[in-house]
Amino acid sequence: MLDSLFKPRSVAVIGASTKELSIGNRVLKNLIDFGFKGSIYPINPKADEVRGIKAYKSILDVPEDGIDVVHMVIPARFVPQAFEDCGKKGVKNVIINSGGFSEIGPEGEAIEKAFMEVARKYGIRVLGPNCQGIINSDPEYRAYCNFTFTMPEPGFISIVALSGGVAEVIHQGFSAMGVGTRIYASNGNACDITIPEIIRYLGDDEQTRVLVTYVEGLRDPEGFMQAVTEVAAKKPVLAMKAGRTREGAKAAASHTGGLAKEDLATDLIFKKAGVLTFTDEGQLIRAAAAFATQPIPKGNRVGIITNTGGPAVIATDVLVAAGLEIPPLSEKTEAFLKERLYPEASVHNPVDVLATGTAEHYRACMDAMMEDDNFDCLFINFVTPFFVDTDSIAREIVEVNRQRKKPIICNLMTDTRQWTETVRILKEGEVPFFALPSDAARALTALVRYRNILNRAPGEVKDFTDIDRKAAATIVAGVRGAGRKTLLAGEVYRILEAYGIPVPAWKVVGDAAMVEQAANEMGGPVVVKADAEHIVHKSDMGAVAVNLPDGAAARKAAEEMTAKLGGEGLKFLVQQYLPGGKEVILGAKAEPGLGHLIMFGIGGIYVEVLKDVVFNLTPVTSTEAEEMIDSLKLSPLLKGVRGEKGVDRAALVELIQRLSRLVSDLTDIAEMDLNPTLAFEDGLSVVDARISL
Amino acid sequence: MLDSLFKPRSVAVIGASTKELSIGNRVLKNLIDFGFKGSIYPINPKADEVRGIKAYKSILDVPEDGIDVVHMVIPARFVPQAFEDCGKKGVKNVIINSGGFSEIGPEGEAIEKAFMEVARKYGIRVLGPNCQGIINSDPEYRAYCNFTFTMPEPGFISIVALSGGVAEVIHQGFSAMGVGTRIYASNGNACDITIPEIIRYLGDDEQTRVLVTYVEGLRDPEGFMQAVTEVAAKKPVLAMKAGRTREGAKAAASHTGGLAKEDLATDLIFKKAGVLTFTDEGQLIRAAAAFATQPIPKGNRVGIITNTGGPAVIATDVLVAAGLEIPPLSEKTEAFLKERLYPEASVHNPVDVLATGTAEHYRACMDAMMEDDNFDCLFINFVTPFFVDTDSIAREIVEVNRQRKKPIICNLMTDTRQWTETVRILKEGEVPFFALPSDAARALTALVRYRNILNRAPGEVKDFTDIDRKAAATIVAGVRGAGRKTLLAGEVYRILEAYGIPVPAWKVVGDAAMVEQAANEMGGPVVVKADAEHIVHKSDMGAVAVNLPDGAAARKAAEEMTAKLGGEGLKFLVQQYLPGGKEVILGAKAEPGLGHLIMFGIGGIYVEVLKDVVFNLTPVTSTEAEEMIDSLKLSPLLKGVRGEKGVDRAALVELIQRLSRLVSDLTDIAEMDLNPTLAFEDGLSVVDARISL
Repeated sequence: MLDSLFKPRSVAVIGASTKELSIGNRVLKNLIDFGFKGSIYPINPKADEVRGIKAYKSILDVPEDGIDVVHMVIPARFVPQAFEDCGKKGVKNVIINSGGFSEIGPEGEAIEKAFMEVARKYGIRVLGPNCQGIINSDPEYRAYCNFTFTMPEPGFISIVALSGGVAEVIHQGFSAMGVGTRIYASNGNACDITIPEIIRYLGDDEQTRVLVTYVEGLRDPEGFMQAVTEVAAKKPVLAMKAGRTREGAKAAASHTGGLAKEDLATDLIFKKAGVLTFTDEGQLIRAAAAFATQPIPKGNRVGIITNTGGPAVIATDVLVAAGLEIPPLSEKTEAFLKERLYPEASVHNPVDVLATGTAEHYRACMDAMMEDDNFDCLFINFVTPFFVDTDSIAREIVEVNRQRKKPIICNLMTDTRQWTETVRILKEGEVPFFALPSDAARALTALVRYRNILNRAPGEVKDFTDIDRKAAATIVAGVRGAGRKTLLAGEVYRILEAYGIPVPAWKVVGDAAMVEQAANEMGGPVVVKADAEHIVHKSDMGAVAVNLPDGAAARKAAEEMTAKLGGEGLKFLVQQYLPGGKEVILGAKAEPGLGHLIMFGIGGIYVEVLKDVVFNLTPVTSTEAEEMIDSLKLSPLLKGVRGEKGVDRAALVELIQRLSRLVSDLTDIAEMDLNPTLAFEDGLSVVDARISL
Repeated sequence: MLDSLFKPRSVAVIGASTKELSIGNRVLKNLIDFGFKGSIYPINPKADEVRGIKAYKSILDVPEDGIDVVHMVIPARFVPQAFEDCGKKGVKNVIINSGGFSEIGPEGEAIEKAFMEVARKYGIRVLGPNCQGIINSDPEYRAYCNFTFTMPEPGFISIVALSGGVAEVIHQGFSAMGVGTRIYASNGNACDITIPEIIRYLGDDEQTRVLVTYVEGLRDPEGFMQAVTEVAAKKPVLAMKAGRTREGAKAAASHTGGLAKEDLATDLIFKKAGVLTFTDEGQLIRAAAAFATQPIPKGNRVGIITNTGGPAVIATDVLVAAGLEIPPLSEKTEAFLKERLYPEASVHNPVDVLATGTAEHYRACMDAMMEDDNFDCLFINFVTPFFVDTDSIAREIVEVNRQRKKPIICNLMTDTRQWTETVRILKEGEVPFFALPSDAARALTALVRYRNILNRAPGEVKDFTDIDRKAAATIVAGVRGAGRKTLLAGEVYRILEAYGIPVPAWKVVGDAAMVEQAANEMGGPVVVKADAEHIVHKSDMGAVAVNLPDGAAARKAAEEMTAKLGGEGLKFLVQQYLPGGKEVILGAKAEPGLGHLIMFGIGGIYVEVLKDVVFNLTPVTSTEAEEMIDSLKLSPLLKGVRGEKGVDRAALVELIQRLSRLVSDLTDIAEMDLNPTLAFEDGLSVVDARISL
């Protein structure tokens, strides 16, 4: 429970300073300016008072025990001793604003370890070190335990991030828009209290309607995923991930000491957990403002009301491009509005009430659209001509907004310095409004995106009963025991068979004569592949021969391979040759802490030229497998184009899930490929595969 | 010359009203509030004065002749007579703010025609009707001849658009950012003064450094293209086109009475003319603010300075995703900065001077990067911690900005209500600053995009000397004469040959016996196609047979077609069959007022599934033909993948240009297809083609 941290009744500042431009002074100033409702104890060995508040020489001198929050704004080397003192006084939480800990290297790491030992001894929770702190705008607390400069109005959006820089940008973004925030937390090095822990806390906080977070990389992907999955089921979680490009990831690594990699897994975690993701912080900020006050729409159909033409066109473009619909008015609505609006008004969707449109006109449109089953949400373009009573229009919008029947997003095109009363009415009436039509439209698309997440078919992780897990595990254990990393063909195919993954008839044999015999037994054309641990890139090494019509041809191929590759330990995989089919590829790759990444794509030149592959995390549900197939750019090829028949979709969905199950069971597998897999109209077959541990 | 309109010395308002909330009053109020430097004459038959200024009963009573601008804010039916009066008084320009003209139908159209006759008689230029008017913020004029509400500071950005709604949104966007504008013009129905005319005027206006426009569709594409081409060669022209989706186009049509179509040509005009295009008005606004004060970068390499980590990561992502580079510091810069910055500072690109970084630190970074040949432009992330002297940092940025050596874009992360002095310094120092890292980064990418446009190889329209234009024109004339729309195969192939477009050996013959003979003469496999005007979709109708090994097979195919399609007027095209090659498709389509659209794509399933086609307008230059090929998603297929050889690129570039020349010469052609065209390693061949007039 982080209540004592986020809802403190007493705050002490160790390192409270009389110097105006110091953090030790600013934290006090912020507490005072923000109107903290509890007790404040500046700790300063030399001053009698700081910022007009009685100061104490030591935390030990404070007349109160069990202080909720103690700020430490002192050099790192003094911190462990300060923790001892805090422990003796029963302090509950410490926020370390100072730097000089693990972020500077081993020396700082040692200090971090030292104070954490003390903290654990006394049960003190720690935020930071090297962090900004927390803010709670709740009128009961007004806790600004933070040295930043944004003084938020109370609101329903909470913000949490390791990176103070971006968290503050986002926080300031809300403030500049006049949108309130609730709880703000930035925990720097996060040596004790973690982001997942804070996310869970905010998930339980009733007044937090929307949770906003920013990540560059995840330290504890598993814990993060569990926390966001839990919370996203209760309220919208909006997230932005930066370091998306190689250079961005490098920049992120340089300031966080994290890993410099393009981090595919974070996006997959977000998706799996039902987090609404953004790549633009402005869009995230505006979307959060919409979520803070608006209900979630039941569908994607938008009714647009406007008093100016062009901005409605822009909004329409944005909405439609994002997959929203602009359906026609119902006959009833049309008839109703034709009676109420000016004769020149445009009575179809978007409805143009004209610049001279009055509050009554707006109201008629809103009422009709709220009733009209053709619409799930309303988009209002509202320019403020000086010749209409814009305050009354704003009041009508507010009144309809209060019904909370369908979400309303407003594009208010005005000079906020002149139309102050109109702005005030909309703001107090909790109508989200934005200055540009595209921005406003995108906020609405975010509501619909979230609704799509909520409406996702849950899907299930299919429970395959025909799997011989033990047989497969025994093979893997054998390879491990032999100190090998790469599995031989026979091992691979036996594992695939144990997991019910269809493969062509195959046999591993020891020499060319046995190849001939095996090929003759199979009948029909065969493929011969040389098999030994050192042969990794079979095709490049001339270790594959396909479409060999008979045993003799197979033998000849095997003999040539022996000559080329050397006979030492060489075996041969003889496999039935399957003509036709569409090449697809599947793959899996261990992702520490998260299971495996599962990859699916269309093979051949497409993978190379279009990078047309998709990923997911294990366990892949049936819904997710379907989504993977549908999200390929070339997905129509699988469905069949130009009269061509499509491939066996059900078999593909099953294959993806069997692969997911396989690597979930056999966690030792580092990487595996089913490449190519041939997909036919009816069934499929994995014709080449690799597994490494 | 529109000088008398945009730089008026006298303004009269016919319809000046004493009613506060009327346009006839507001226009006067705006003139007065904005500090108009010339004479103001309210015209009102009943009032002695309006807003404290002496009023006249009629324009005829005004003591001055040759008034520069007369506003008309009177019912449409009185407008023609008012023009007569204006004519008699030598009025130079009339801005008609009133509506009730062509936008309402035939009745209004008649009035428009009537007053335009009078206007022409007297040489009066007309802005509007049904328009907002103009604004000129030049301190010498301060002309606010407009009823909108944005009072701009003087600046270097001019705005022109038919749509007053969006123009005003953009204008207000600059004002809200504290960015000045110069001239604003919105001309509504545009019955006389056109957008191209205003664009040319602003092109000549020295104080207009950047021109911003918004279009939904073009009335006079040719005139627009000429004007923007001229102006874009002199200064940045930034444009946004809305109505990009079918629904958006429909919304646009409903409020402009224009055509409801997704308007491909406008984008191509912009591209050809060198206009910088935007699909988001916010991005356009911020980019224009950057162009207003910054030089154009010489390249795409960005040096980033930051005092906070995360926002630099976000900016890096945006810049890199847009094709900009974040190169390393030169050794010299690195050594220099290691001496100047804090030891903990991160001395590689992005350079992190730390939150405690001082003005001297920022200055050292800027100086070094301005000198460092690794960088073409600077991106500055600047959060304003309370514990550093942010005013001094701002002053250093301003000083370096004054050098105008390389563009500087600043992401100022602050509370503008608290850091007023820092903001003032940057603003007066003409440093473009934006509140969010992504927004700021995108403004910088716009500068680089514009530089890429300026750097485009000019390319030339190749002058083919081997073309027999006359022969081709004769064929077209013949078809026209015969009252036909669709050309027969022989006609098509003769035209292609006349334009030096490679086709397989072919012959048109009258019956199956002659098919056999022709096939035998050709030798090798042939294609037979039934040819008659009524056979349009040859393949679907069974009118094509390919890869026929010899004359007998060809004869049989022709006989079968005769049986199926009827012999009446049926002829046969016998064509050499070409195996192999990569299918590409080309097409042309007349675009009224603009010549033709030329289409190029990769054939087969790709066109259908990926819609991987590109367009351009005639005449296509060599550079544009190359760009078309490179901009296909599947372009690598043409270059060759997986060791496969690529196709003959030079021949493709030439074919695109020959097609462009063909339709430019034969303007009667409505549509033509070269589909498929087979591209080989060496050369290419059009194996099927259609032309319709």
